Amino acid sequence: MHLVTYLAGQTPRLGVVWHDAVLDLRALSVDMASQRAARPAREAVLPSAMLSLIEGGPDVWARAHEVWEYGRQLVDRLDPADLQRRRVARLLGRTRLLAPIPRPRKNIFCMGRNYAEHAAERGAPPPERPVFFTKPPTAVIGPGAGIVHHAATEALDYEVELAVVLGRGGRDIPAEDALRHVFGYTVLNDVTARDLQKAHQQWFRGKSLDTFCPMGPVLVTADEVPDPQALGIRLRVNGQIRQEATTAQMIFDVATLLATLSRGMTLEPGDILATGTPSGVGAATGAYLKVGDAVEAEIDGLGCLTNRVVAPDQPVAPVGVCFPKGSLGEVHTDRCHTSV
Amino acid sequence: MHLVTYLAGQTPRLGVVWHDAVLDLRALSVDMASQRAARPAREAVLPSAMLSLIEGGPDVWARAHEVWEYGRQLVDRLDPADLQRRRVARLLGRTRLLAPIPRPRKNIFCMGRNYAEHAAERGAPPPERPVFFTKPPTAVIGPGAGIVHHAATEALDYEVELAVVLGRGGRDIPAEDALRHVFGYTVLNDVTARDLQKAHQQWFRGKSLDTFCPMGPVLVTADEVPDPQALGIRLRVNGQIRQEATTAQMIFDVATLLATLSRGMTLEPGDILATGTPSGVGAATGAYLKVGDAVEAEIDGLGCLTNRVVAPDQPVAPVGVCFPKGSLGEVHTDRCHTSV
Repeated sequence: MHLVTYLAGQTPRLGVVWHDAVLDLRALSVDMASQRAARPAREAVLPSAMLSLIEGGPDVWARAHEVWEYGRQLVDRLDPADLQRRRVARLLGRTRLLAPIPRPRKNIFCMGRNYAEHAAERGAPPPERPVFFTKPPTAVIGPGAGIVHHAATEALDYEVELAVVLGRGGRDIPAEDALRHVFGYTVLNDVTARDLQKAHQQWFRGKSLDTFCPMGPVLVTADEVPDPQALGIRLRVNGQIRQEATTAQMIFDVATLLATLSRGMTLEPGDILATGTPSGVGAATGAYLKVGDAVEAEIDGLGCLTNRVVAPDQPVAPVGVCFPKGSLGEVHTDRCHTSV
Repeated sequence: MHLVTYLAGQTPRLGVVWHDAVLDLRALSVDMASQRAARPAREAVLPSAMLSLIEGGPDVWARAHEVWEYGRQLVDRLDPADLQRRRVARLLGRTRLLAPIPRPRKNIFCMGRNYAEHAAERGAPPPERPVFFTKPPTAVIGPGAGIVHHAATEALDYEVELAVVLGRGGRDIPAEDALRHVFGYTVLNDVTARDLQKAHQQWFRGKSLDTFCPMGPVLVTADEVPDPQALGIRLRVNGQIRQEATTAQMIFDVATLLATLSRGMTLEPGDILATGTPSGVGAATGAYLKVGDAVEAEIDGLGCLTNRVVAPDQPVAPVGVCFPKGSLGEVHTDRCHTSV
């Protein structure tokens, strides 16, 4: 499933993307249950928030999968007006997406220098053990939202990363079991103020300004990502390729990162881990981000996360959003480039 | 007010300590309102969780203060049996306290090397800018709970710190306004695995194992702490003084830390900032913590936070808890030392 959190009026809501539609999972679950019984059983109704779905556990995930299949048939069978009337779907192109998890329950775990060429361009040897730091929930933004060029920095940089969202928690998770704890994957841009990162010694400050954690556009469930270490990963600024690699190049793979992080520390459903960025960051060449730049972070199968750099307090006009191939209808392009 | 979160059965609940009693703020607010009207107005009823109180804002804080005054009179007037019957108070000595905020909504902000002598003993010059890192919500434990000596570390260390809890959020907070954003203060032990802190480069991993963030015993509201930079701060292991200083020795004071941290990053009500530890940590002498050690972290006016080091999976017998002078009844000792 390609899960999204989208805005219905002012309320964040859980959806699943199918062709050019966003299906409302909760509404669909009610629709489906009412076909079977006059009064839908309580446990047949799905939650309306991504975190509640994830925290619901395997039974709820299985039900979501059934509801999704029901929804797909409905979309293929009914015409748009009928779907609209039943309030179970809306046009993707007219829907504002948020980050899949708009407000995580703790900081996002991040891994630094997990690609050898990136470590080298930052003047560091490949780390012997994973280098973990965090970004706060207040930094999270969704696809299309603006990355603010805060006055506090003169060296605004990008970092495309594969982000892992946990479905099952645990402590001391063995590496060989770790991938079974994964709920899904998404794209994360670990936006960084290089000057603050350096001046404050520990990286947290330079990694944590508001809007410094774009995520999305979709959360792709793990069943659709058979090998997280075989994904093309790239980033463009104004259409120009800046980072281009494969997740096969990670020094520590996803399983090892989860095993290491969980040694003595309990991981929880909904936890997010960003797994490090490949080479090509702005700091390597001095080509930092400027107001107006469009940043496209893309991972094969997970889609493209596009954000524009904006001045502080500048109103943000959302830019176009692209989706993984297979979830695209005619309204959408499978080219990631947004016209900027 | 000396606010606490305590366990009522299995449920965390918001209380305020007065002499040898814990007053139930919500129950008291209902009791007080029902003296005035047959049906208490909804807004007269206080929340039953610390974070809800803090997020309620100034009106709710003012009401809590009124209710507390009402409760004090009740305690002074009624005998214990009457109090028990009205279900508004319980004996402190028989109450299990949790951390004042048992589950923060994001990681705890921490400041490293904020006392010059401590920086020196760690082989570092005093930092030119604050050094921020975080600890996850999963690390939080309350007074009396066990600090687990995880197998992952052979260098378990302590760090007594003044922790600041925010009442008002904000971004780009000027230093001169910063203290007005503070809701209250508590004691925090920034427990650290020195070997992991070093091996993983960034400090997060070594700071974040389960039980590595004892907090409490009370959250003292800011009106009772006229100057957070004039507090004696000390830590004992098995009764022996290991750290002894005053918060006047901080390199960056609380106001400066909050101003710096909020530059470009939104702070929120309920956010917690630990402000660094003075010299005397175990790493300086090699005297690390062992299973069985009792660690007492104490700050004048805020009480003493006592935790015992336990083996992994060892059942934890809560140790004694001490309170700031002024909130102590006869059942409690104003010596922090627990018999160990």
